[in-house]
Amino acid sequence: MKKKRYEKLADDIAELIHIGVLQAGERAPSIRSACASWDVSPATVFKAYYLLESRGLIQARAKSGYYVLPQSKATVFTSNAVTTPSEKSAVAMNTPTIVQVSDLVFSLLESVRDRRIVPLGSAFPDPALFPVQRLAKSAAHVLRFVQPETLVTDMPLGVLELRRQIAQRYALADVLLSPDEVMITTGAMEALNLCLQAVTRPGDYVAIESPAFYASLQVLERLQLKAVEIPVGAQGMDIDLLQQALAQYPVKACWLMSSFQNPTGASLSDVKKQQLVELLTAQHIPLIEDDVYHELYFGNVAPRPAKHFDHDGWVMHCSSFSKCLAPGYRVGWVSAGRFSQQVQRLKLMTTISPSIPAQAALADYLQHGGYDRHLRKLRQHLQQQYQAMVQAIQRHFPADTQISAPDGGYFLWLTLNPAINSLSLFQQALAAGISIAPGPMFSASQQFANCIRLNYGAVKLEEIEPAIQRLAGLINAAE
Amino acid sequence: MKKKRYEKLADDIAELIHIGVLQAGERAPSIRSACASWDVSPATVFKAYYLLESRGLIQARAKSGYYVLPQSKATVFTSNAVTTPSEKSAVAMNTPTIVQVSDLVFSLLESVRDRRIVPLGSAFPDPALFPVQRLAKSAAHVLRFVQPETLVTDMPLGVLELRRQIAQRYALADVLLSPDEVMITTGAMEALNLCLQAVTRPGDYVAIESPAFYASLQVLERLQLKAVEIPVGAQGMDIDLLQQALAQYPVKACWLMSSFQNPTGASLSDVKKQQLVELLTAQHIPLIEDDVYHELYFGNVAPRPAKHFDHDGWVMHCSSFSKCLAPGYRVGWVSAGRFSQQVQRLKLMTTISPSIPAQAALADYLQHGGYDRHLRKLRQHLQQQYQAMVQAIQRHFPADTQISAPDGGYFLWLTLNPAINSLSLFQQALAAGISIAPGPMFSASQQFANCIRLNYGAVKLEEIEPAIQRLAGLINAAE
Repeated sequence: MKKKRYEKLADDIAELIHIGVLQAGERAPSIRSACASWDVSPATVFKAYYLLESRGLIQARAKSGYYVLPQSKATVFTSNAVTTPSEKSAVAMNTPTIVQVSDLVFSLLESVRDRRIVPLGSAFPDPALFPVQRLAKSAAHVLRFVQPETLVTDMPLGVLELRRQIAQRYALADVLLSPDEVMITTGAMEALNLCLQAVTRPGDYVAIESPAFYASLQVLERLQLKAVEIPVGAQGMDIDLLQQALAQYPVKACWLMSSFQNPTGASLSDVKKQQLVELLTAQHIPLIEDDVYHELYFGNVAPRPAKHFDHDGWVMHCSSFSKCLAPGYRVGWVSAGRFSQQVQRLKLMTTISPSIPAQAALADYLQHGGYDRHLRKLRQHLQQQYQAMVQAIQRHFPADTQISAPDGGYFLWLTLNPAINSLSLFQQALAAGISIAPGPMFSASQQFANCIRLNYGAVKLEEIEPAIQRLAGLINAAE
Repeated sequence: MKKKRYEKLADDIAELIHIGVLQAGERAPSIRSACASWDVSPATVFKAYYLLESRGLIQARAKSGYYVLPQSKATVFTSNAVTTPSEKSAVAMNTPTIVQVSDLVFSLLESVRDRRIVPLGSAFPDPALFPVQRLAKSAAHVLRFVQPETLVTDMPLGVLELRRQIAQRYALADVLLSPDEVMITTGAMEALNLCLQAVTRPGDYVAIESPAFYASLQVLERLQLKAVEIPVGAQGMDIDLLQQALAQYPVKACWLMSSFQNPTGASLSDVKKQQLVELLTAQHIPLIEDDVYHELYFGNVAPRPAKHFDHDGWVMHCSSFSKCLAPGYRVGWVSAGRFSQQVQRLKLMTTISPSIPAQAALADYLQHGGYDRHLRKLRQHLQQQYQAMVQAIQRHFPADTQISAPDGGYFLWLTLNPAINSLSLFQQALAAGISIAPGPMFSASQQFANCIRLNYGAVKLEEIEPAIQRLAGLINAAE
């Protein structure tokens, strides 16, 4: 039998309650707005609401309308089946190699969001390390004075005061830039994407690190670029091998992390940074410098970015506040040298601008919030965590484990016995309540099967020892 | 003669003052941090600061360090020439056709930022129309309670409460969605980019409107897609012509604005929306529905999106708060149907997430800020502006001017005498202090030479009459 109009309407509203769009205590749409929305008469709405009342889903309150009642899930009536995205067929991605990496990456990201899992595999630092309340104070303060038209006028490059503050930080690292040479982006990730896109076309070769940050592999895949993988040692990318590769392939860009590389933690020395910039400049190859861990150094002095050695604008320097101050604000930046205009245009075609209020809040914090004090505390904390994790590994892991020795950041890179398969270890560790980042995530050619990346900045100090011990148990059992 | 170390340091700091990185009244770096940053001895820093003091650039204050003095530009010493981006050679873009459109678009965007120009060519509404203070209150309120870990956990889909509020708005437009079927993006622009990228590869054909929103032309160019242009009439895209085009070309996606199209203001009727969805669904062609003007209807009832007629998940519905509530917040969303997972993954590879604080602020506003009241006022205001502009045009423009009749949004589309070249008119109008959007901006094949788009939402009511009169003067002189 065909349903009556008011029955269908009642079913629709029951569905809204069922899927959580209307929640207990909320007011149901007024008769007037329900008439307009569903294009029905007031009588139909009344009948539908009467039916919903009889089903115990809503309740009338005098002179105030209808309100949703609390439900036990089992008693909710539904007629339309609303499929959730997970039930729908996913569209597969391009080449088999990268599908594997991407699936791995996404299942890792998924596990990191599960609060019951110890997030040693996370790419994020512990959110509790950041001055969230102080940032909120800055946001509240600055938004009271924001001029409506700045929301539009600040759009192309970003909030001027924020760019000025960033130029000051550059000066501290011995890079002279005017605020107009800085463009704000939605995190460093957008900056890196825009830079790579500005200087390549599908099919081009790009020199990257091996191992590399997995997101760079995904971006290459997305833009249909070919990866020329250059090994990274304890002193960062091997510049001699890069030079050989440049002789062999028509490389259109080089993308690397110059300091505290993800995943190895390795940094290039000043001498090597200069050598790198000179090599690339001579061949007119742009360098995309991912420098997101720049502020997280353990020594007394900030490392110089490769950008310091750039006199002809071939270095596109990308960074963000996500690792050192404000994850979730999604505010990064790029100083793209001679490619500035093109990168700016690409941004205007894709995201236009990151949130202006978020930028204004950060600008206020950088001026008045005590950023340097926060950074000193953060660096000290990460160094302490680093030492605790290295000591725990030395205590519990097999003797043949090789541990990287970063001077900053929050990642350790471990090379385990060749018999260990880090992908299996990833699954076992997850089952044991710990996430790790397995080596093959960081390689277009699926190398580093016996390597893992551990994050010492994502957990509490007291969690390190037991988690490492549990992980060691799995490794010892596998060897 | 080679400069001494302290002289070079002094020059560097003078440069920072000159380019505005260090401003009058600000504290110069402490001796300690200057030593660390520039890798020099305290003696060198003292000598440099002494030199700068003698040049009148900084001044010591007892027990507090050195401070930058106010300067007249002429007296600032500089040694390093810092080139600004505009002095550097821009990298040209791809095909000649689109370079023309892009250059035009960017020079228009540039003119819109000039406060002295009457912005009839703007794509943005007047920022004063939005509840900026009330939004700031929501931001201040909600940020005090934000949990640090939500900054990370909310990242993939976006803030849940915001997605729930958006699902409620969908319900008012008769579209049943669960909050998990909505993903937050950096404005609708990112949503549209991600959708198109999810369902196409370079070289594919995409059906778009003619005239079309210029950004869609730029996105097609960026992704190396071929535009199949389908004419838009007073009743929106011609569905019969679309059907013919689908028979002729292997179209991989259709992208359009179903309501209050930019630039024509035209809307598809419910019947045509249904017909469109059925046509595309039958051929398994995804529809990318750009619905950013949805809330700006002049009638009593919100238009239904094409998404309402979508039963198989082939419609990817994109919208944002930029046109109706919060420009500058850069918060949009997509409900991508069967392509949800792929679109989500693409976002994780490019921008990861829009600002979480901006999302949380909007969620709070939607719950408590009086959104419907604001929208009613906004719609009334735009309708009033619309009438004023139409009347002014009828009074001053040549009698052969054809004016579109939108039911919402804030754009008028004018077809002028074929003798008029809107590109020349654009230049002349700009010289006369008015921006307009010339027709060829909206066409991959440079059509609409005698058309212009005017924005009646970007100016004050009293600005309309004199601006239109001045514009009419230029047109009358040209005819």
